[in-house]
Amino acid sequence: MVGPAAQTPIFVGIDIGGTNIKLGLVNDAGQVVASRSIPTEQSRGAEDGCRRIGETVRQLIAESQVSSAHVVRAGLVSPGPIDVPRGRVLRPGNIPAWWDFPIRERASHHLGVPVTFNNDANAAAYGEFWRGAGERFQSMILLTLGTGVGGGIIIGDMLIDGVHNCGGECGHILVDPRDDAPRDSLGKSGSLEAYCNALALVARVRAAIVAGGNSTLASIHSADYEITPRIVAEAAEQGDELAHGAIMETARWLAIGIVSLVHTIDPDAVVLGGAMNFGGLASPLGREFIERVRTEAHPRMLEPLRDTVKIEFATLGGDAGFVGSAGLARLDYNKGTGPITSITNS
Amino acid sequence: MVGPAAQTPIFVGIDIGGTNIKLGLVNDAGQVVASRSIPTEQSRGAEDGCRRIGETVRQLIAESQVSSAHVVRAGLVSPGPIDVPRGRVLRPGNIPAWWDFPIRERASHHLGVPVTFNNDANAAAYGEFWRGAGERFQSMILLTLGTGVGGGIIIGDMLIDGVHNCGGECGHILVDPRDDAPRDSLGKSGSLEAYCNALALVARVRAAIVAGGNSTLASIHSADYEITPRIVAEAAEQGDELAHGAIMETARWLAIGIVSLVHTIDPDAVVLGGAMNFGGLASPLGREFIERVRTEAHPRMLEPLRDTVKIEFATLGGDAGFVGSAGLARLDYNKGTGPITSITNS
Repeated sequence: MVGPAAQTPIFVGIDIGGTNIKLGLVNDAGQVVASRSIPTEQSRGAEDGCRRIGETVRQLIAESQVSSAHVVRAGLVSPGPIDVPRGRVLRPGNIPAWWDFPIRERASHHLGVPVTFNNDANAAAYGEFWRGAGERFQSMILLTLGTGVGGGIIIGDMLIDGVHNCGGECGHILVDPRDDAPRDSLGKSGSLEAYCNALALVARVRAAIVAGGNSTLASIHSADYEITPRIVAEAAEQGDELAHGAIMETARWLAIGIVSLVHTIDPDAVVLGGAMNFGGLASPLGREFIERVRTEAHPRMLEPLRDTVKIEFATLGGDAGFVGSAGLARLDYNKGTGPITSITNS
Repeated sequence: MVGPAAQTPIFVGIDIGGTNIKLGLVNDAGQVVASRSIPTEQSRGAEDGCRRIGETVRQLIAESQVSSAHVVRAGLVSPGPIDVPRGRVLRPGNIPAWWDFPIRERASHHLGVPVTFNNDANAAAYGEFWRGAGERFQSMILLTLGTGVGGGIIIGDMLIDGVHNCGGECGHILVDPRDDAPRDSLGKSGSLEAYCNALALVARVRAAIVAGGNSTLASIHSADYEITPRIVAEAAEQGDELAHGAIMETARWLAIGIVSLVHTIDPDAVVLGGAMNFGGLASPLGREFIERVRTEAHPRMLEPLRDTVKIEFATLGGDAGFVGSAGLARLDYNKGTGPITSITNS
């Protein structure tokens, strides 16, 4: 948090999720002036959500003693699929109550400022690029590992958004060509998501146990309790070889996807975000995980990339989305353009 | 060819290959005013090559009655690896006599105009984008199929060049994660190139024959004659099922690579260039090949991409490289910048 007077103009960042909406005021230097999380309360509907977003932003402005005249634009992001040119949420799996809603126009109505609209993975990528792990780089790919595998690609302050807002859909690149490969949340076989999301890690552990592997997690499995990535990580930290192996297998598949991505984009860095970071740099397991990603990925790259493409953990955590959406609003504000932040022909 | 007075300024395009150097004068609208191919004659060395390039360009200018005052800049491309910022050819496999040569400076010396330098695959992509199959699109991925698999990515008049000129190295994305998968020319296993270049097609045919498959090519194989993609295509056209199957298998692997690329870039189109086009649209086999690529690729894509990403043959043939290099020179000329055409931080 910084003093209110520093670095105007001020941008609003809004990151809509299935459970919570994160909001923040972000200054021109990318510092968070104030932030809050409110429940999405889907059952109250999208219009009510937009009304509460407006209310909360006015509270944040008042509490942080920002002049509302300095608040010039908002960035709002939601899970995809979305229609960026039309400013509409389409049919995201985790916010069914908000389907087919003209969110850009309604949020703008309740906020009183123009709104820049994009998807949450792109915004997280821009947030990390602007003020997080990518701050010192000119180009960056973000991969977010969680229930899904999301992605976003930034090259020199430009978002690779694509013609249908499907640029940077890195979870859907293929890492296994077999038609009978594991499937992802959309039923696609062999995608990076199908091998690297939370479900894939848990499935890998369960399969190893069923195949007779020895693990402290066998009792949880046989009792039909839910195994989660956190439980797998804790077992691995306590020396469970099977759990450890499943996590390192995730690192290997992630590396294979990264190799394809870096030969397409050739960025300065690949940044790993999302909840499934095995403790990140603060934990020996997290450090071993990212080091494994590097040692699996680098030898598979062309020589000029091999020792130079950085592979790092994200640093903004759950703030990346709203910081990045404020940053995308700032890009549009500085360009003086409409709501589309893209180098393509949306 | 067009009249000399039309559409000034004029740009020189130069495409250096292991056997021939293609040169052309290209006007501001991308029309070829004059062109020629001269032997590379590697044994005479790179400096002599640059001297002959200068000579030939002066001949083309004289013969086409262009005023040399209208010739403002040249684009020169070579096979990689190259060092774009330093303007140097590094160590391309097919022009060993030109290794470690400061080609941009020397070509500029002999031509008398500034030179824009890039790799040949990027230039071919820009050529197809400017005046070929990509003319009506805003973003495009070119894949060139031949002895290697090259690539180039254009988004809105920008080349995705990357930090180390390895952006768009689409032949090196992975389509098979197995460590014992087939290897490409650089020894990398499981790359798109390892499955889709000329060698891979021939290897596929040979393996099928060795496995007891029935084919008219068996006699060539057993006599140890060289099987080429052209011979495979001719056999397929004459009803050889084994040859036909090997070509359609190439289409399937290509489709798998395309799926990864379009979920990264989300372009308007993927364009297939290079010598290995099985006759292109002029031939029933070529038409079947590209249709197979489409039917293998589209069902593997996210819905917004599935029916909208175009997959087309390139249209400029062997001219794409010099037309595109002239086009890259034109971009730099219009920007008034130095030699680097890139949206990244080279």
